[in-house]
Amino acid sequence: MSINDMPYKIYLEENELPTSWYNVRADMKNKPAPLIHPGTLEPLKFEDMQPIFCDELIKQELDDNTREIKIPDEVLNFYKMYRPSPLTHAVFLERALNTPAHIFYKFEGNNTSGSHKLNSAIAQAYYAKKQGLKGVTTETGAGQWGTALAMACAFFGLDCKVFMVKVSYEQKPFRREVMRTYGADVTPSPSMNTEIGKKINAEHPGTTGSLGCAISEAVEVALKSEGYRYVLGSVLNQVLLHQSVIGLETSAACKKYNIKPDVIIGCAGGGSNLGGLIAPFMGEKLRGEADYKFIAVEPASCPSFTRGKFAYDFCDTGKVCPMAKMYTLGHDFIPSANHAGGLRYHGMSSVLSQLYHDGLMEARSVEQTKVFEAAEQFARTEGILPAPESSHAIRVAIDEALKCKETGEEKTIILGLTGTGYFDMTAYEQFNNGTMSDYIPTDSDLAKGFATIPNINK
Amino acid sequence: MSINDMPYKIYLEENELPTSWYNVRADMKNKPAPLIHPGTLEPLKFEDMQPIFCDELIKQELDDNTREIKIPDEVLNFYKMYRPSPLTHAVFLERALNTPAHIFYKFEGNNTSGSHKLNSAIAQAYYAKKQGLKGVTTETGAGQWGTALAMACAFFGLDCKVFMVKVSYEQKPFRREVMRTYGADVTPSPSMNTEIGKKINAEHPGTTGSLGCAISEAVEVALKSEGYRYVLGSVLNQVLLHQSVIGLETSAACKKYNIKPDVIIGCAGGGSNLGGLIAPFMGEKLRGEADYKFIAVEPASCPSFTRGKFAYDFCDTGKVCPMAKMYTLGHDFIPSANHAGGLRYHGMSSVLSQLYHDGLMEARSVEQTKVFEAAEQFARTEGILPAPESSHAIRVAIDEALKCKETGEEKTIILGLTGTGYFDMTAYEQFNNGTMSDYIPTDSDLAKGFATIPNINK
Repeated sequence: MSINDMPYKIYLEENELPTSWYNVRADMKNKPAPLIHPGTLEPLKFEDMQPIFCDELIKQELDDNTREIKIPDEVLNFYKMYRPSPLTHAVFLERALNTPAHIFYKFEGNNTSGSHKLNSAIAQAYYAKKQGLKGVTTETGAGQWGTALAMACAFFGLDCKVFMVKVSYEQKPFRREVMRTYGADVTPSPSMNTEIGKKINAEHPGTTGSLGCAISEAVEVALKSEGYRYVLGSVLNQVLLHQSVIGLETSAACKKYNIKPDVIIGCAGGGSNLGGLIAPFMGEKLRGEADYKFIAVEPASCPSFTRGKFAYDFCDTGKVCPMAKMYTLGHDFIPSANHAGGLRYHGMSSVLSQLYHDGLMEARSVEQTKVFEAAEQFARTEGILPAPESSHAIRVAIDEALKCKETGEEKTIILGLTGTGYFDMTAYEQFNNGTMSDYIPTDSDLAKGFATIPNINK
Repeated sequence: MSINDMPYKIYLEENELPTSWYNVRADMKNKPAPLIHPGTLEPLKFEDMQPIFCDELIKQELDDNTREIKIPDEVLNFYKMYRPSPLTHAVFLERALNTPAHIFYKFEGNNTSGSHKLNSAIAQAYYAKKQGLKGVTTETGAGQWGTALAMACAFFGLDCKVFMVKVSYEQKPFRREVMRTYGADVTPSPSMNTEIGKKINAEHPGTTGSLGCAISEAVEVALKSEGYRYVLGSVLNQVLLHQSVIGLETSAACKKYNIKPDVIIGCAGGGSNLGGLIAPFMGEKLRGEADYKFIAVEPASCPSFTRGKFAYDFCDTGKVCPMAKMYTLGHDFIPSANHAGGLRYHGMSSVLSQLYHDGLMEARSVEQTKVFEAAEQFARTEGILPAPESSHAIRVAIDEALKCKETGEEKTIILGLTGTGYFDMTAYEQFNNGTMSDYIPTDSDLAKGFATIPNINK
């Protein structure tokens, strides 16, 4: 079938959907470095993680060798509610750009959580339920992960305690109410329900909270409550494993319609969407079966890959979590206040960090006004209002397509569209009003963050 | 194929999609009564409507006889961006209800406007562009129609002026910014840009506006601006025609998988979704080819069908629009302030009114706390947070399914899920907090509205 005869949106049939997740670590020659204990600096073992994480998820976290891991039937069942996600041929965008390039996007926003986060939330909730737990705890910033987890817990009848950064709790009441509609218990963080929350409130009266603090509160509650564990929506190996469903569907659709991608582009915050999207394609590259160009796109104001250090660092500001080897700006790094476009995490998935370090993928940083220009063009041509995060990938896809216009190359580009921007209209408002500005940290700005990276060589 | 073997979500192939709209009026023995001029009481002719509406849309408005009207290629092209919408088998809801009934829902919320409104917006924008107009004007309350129209106008490069009820403009800044991102000019109504706006602002200083006033402003601007026309998102015959795409897809999916609906349920405000959903099925019933039970669901606090009068009345509070024969509560009727669930229009599509009057469909009214209970159950089982409007249909579908549980009947129920509730979280918050209350107008409450219905018999 020629590219012009194929449907605008490709929906796989149910019997064409993946039934196993793909673990890219199995094909990596250089495995990602293990999580280590900040006190002993020893790799974390199963028993070390058991008080915090669900047993089956720890196994997945530690498993660098099993290539395919069966998706449980109960999870497959839930996936049917909102998967397959469409792989869409961006014909209207191509026309607007007048490019010979072919652009496809894998859209993960057609579910109530509004993003790909649900793919891992339902898996994590399932394993928690299977272990006989009462509930899970987590943190959420903007609310996408919290919403996804609330939906997943409602489905399995599991209790869900979400610590939501106070400023978001107050400024994003819609997200909060979606979670509550799904039965989640949403607490503004820092709260007075935990020791760490009380301490932070006492030290910083009136603080509006941070993700680092919310993580600490969620972990504390999980450790202290009988039958609870803590769950996390990005960065971890297990999350990338679950998110491989995105790439597997994309790959199946490409094979079905004989689409041969040259470039695969995704935004990178903690790396869960990008890692999932590229997984099977990266597997082919690692096994020498095919070659692809992978581009991770990050904000210029939070440039973990393009300007960070590859080193062991804490995963959270509060230093309650273990240390991971990753590209990091230092666990104290916080992007400038004018940064509205998401992807504000200081570090990066260890899997993606290793792949980048080994030269198997590229990275680019983009400024947010350029990102919102791309978002607006995409919204007006393709009819989907993209999340600011996703729009980083759109920016680079458009740039690549415009290069093709100059060179006349008919490249095929696939981009990961992680979600919708419905809950990010404050950022769009800044852009619409012309009050959005850019920020590129200076070397001395970055040096302050780097100074907080622990001095460890592993 | 048995009902248990079919896919959970049915997506038609591109070549199975409708290429014509279906005009149910062609099969109605008793045609809907024509719009009349409030001064002369004569039926409106083409020329009477020309200053306000686009030519081609007037033709569609007046055409009671052409059964199939071809969907222009440019509109079909746009439909490809977000259609077909899925017809989903609500297996998880069925399981939760433990009912022998089969429930399907046609979900129109998977597009950035978040509702079915886009189906007519793109058609109306197309005809305006084809006529060589510069732009269109409209009003919007909650913002769904305004958003849909902004998207459609962006696609065709048409100017779009939206008068947004001031209270929504201020309380729903997200909706406003989505429209602005699509390039629409959004003005809070009443504004100081129109005569009627100035008058209302002078008479009621500090007023937060009403839909009636916003309509008047939009019509005034269309009449005074060279190359502009006014467009409307519901009630009109033309809108029901465009929305028939919903029913045609549903009907095609039913035929493909041998689904034989017994009951078809939709919410009814102005009637655009319900009219579109049932159109081809009603056609079969009118031609004696099949029988279906149709149920229109409306809020108990705004019971146009179940307690209204079938009479000529003004379509708008400000009396700038023509009069239509319809089920009406009187053009001055405004639902109680505690009503948060949408569907607050005092009247109803003339087509649906005639069908109801002729006994071809039923109507039911439901109280809003019961509606939100159904919404919550649907969200938790089916993974979609429904719009309050859609949840009226869910309520009655659940009631019907529970009746089947008692009787053991294996009925097949189809319901129209018009959209998502992302922008209605204030209402959900009331429900989550237990502060939502119900209101059923007394007969004397209704009598006040009825007193404003003009004393005309046609």
